[in-house]
Amino acid sequence: MENNRLMKDIEFIVEIDKMKSILRQTTLMDKSKRENDAEHSWHISVMAMVLSEYANEEVDTYKVIKMLLIHDLVEIYAGDTFCYDKVGNEDKKERELKAAEKIFGMLGEDKGKEFRELWDEFEEMKTKEALFAASMDRLQPMLSNYYSGGGTWEKFNVQKKDIYKRISPVKESSEELWKFVEYMIEDAFEKGYITKE
Amino acid sequence: MENNRLMKDIEFIVEIDKMKSILRQTTLMDKSKRENDAEHSWHISVMAMVLSEYANEEVDTYKVIKMLLIHDLVEIYAGDTFCYDKVGNEDKKERELKAAEKIFGMLGEDKGKEFRELWDEFEEMKTKEALFAASMDRLQPMLSNYYSGGGTWEKFNVQKKDIYKRISPVKESSEELWKFVEYMIEDAFEKGYITKE
Repeated sequence: MENNRLMKDIEFIVEIDKMKSILRQTTLMDKSKRENDAEHSWHISVMAMVLSEYANEEVDTYKVIKMLLIHDLVEIYAGDTFCYDKVGNEDKKERELKAAEKIFGMLGEDKGKEFRELWDEFEEMKTKEALFAASMDRLQPMLSNYYSGGGTWEKFNVQKKDIYKRISPVKESSEELWKFVEYMIEDAFEKGYITKE
Repeated sequence: MENNRLMKDIEFIVEIDKMKSILRQTTLMDKSKRENDAEHSWHISVMAMVLSEYANEEVDTYKVIKMLLIHDLVEIYAGDTFCYDKVGNEDKKERELKAAEKIFGMLGEDKGKEFRELWDEFEEMKTKEALFAASMDRLQPMLSNYYSGGGTWEKFNVQKKDIYKRISPVKESSEELWKFVEYMIEDAFEKGYITKE
């Protein structure tokens, strides 16, 4: 094949197959297995399609979805860092920056730049699209915990205050979704899925 | 929670977690396991981001991605039908239509209609977006077969002419991608991954 640009794209597509083997701490709602990054990325992208209407300010849902589809690609090299793992999170940024160079560097320069900019915007969590994307990324594992009756909240004995801190982007993004989040967390606490204040 | 519309959306999001357990015949490229519908849907959505520049006519990539994210939701109830299974494909349409009523019917009326229209357009495979989406959907498992050295082509002894028939939407969508597809299929035949003409 003579088309170098296309062959780079194909190599990238082959490389990211590895996302299907990067396990997260969260399990499926039926508790049958731990979910992986590809499954998670798909789920939150559909969530953005369904829930973007609840954003306080209208968001560019296409941009949100593009961010969500690629936000975890760095974990192919940097691995998944559990959000409540304080030690693992110390060098997370550094590991992920190196991984971003590597994975987005596989694409042609312009496309690599476009993907990297989406990832940077997501990571910085400042624009309304990045905040809404972060809201989807953080809400999904909480839904898994809630609907599976405890999940990682229970397994790792996570404190309610840390859960509220983790899910705070929703408070900035959507009044309607925040009402649901508060209901869910307080109900989970009452039911004993969350055991510590 | 008083917001019925939002609670319907949450129930839909919980229901589609089942996509992570719908197994396809295709394996990961490292052959470690069979892939599931959620992983597949994620992979082809990223492929659309990467490859849409090769479409002969400019496509609405956002629409393509929305179609790809939801195109397999019907399989939660209808199951995955292997593309070269002639018997299974006889009643596939009927099973999937019933499933579409059920899954998209979970959403509020307007949103359910929007999702259903995307699915119908994808299934009809007439618009340039639907053809490009079908191209991604069909190219991805072929990449898995090629890069894993045979995959379902070898396992089910699929004929080369049936592979060409299955991948024909690419021929209509993209001259550049079609060149790659021809190269890949002929190379797979020479290497013995495809054994029958």
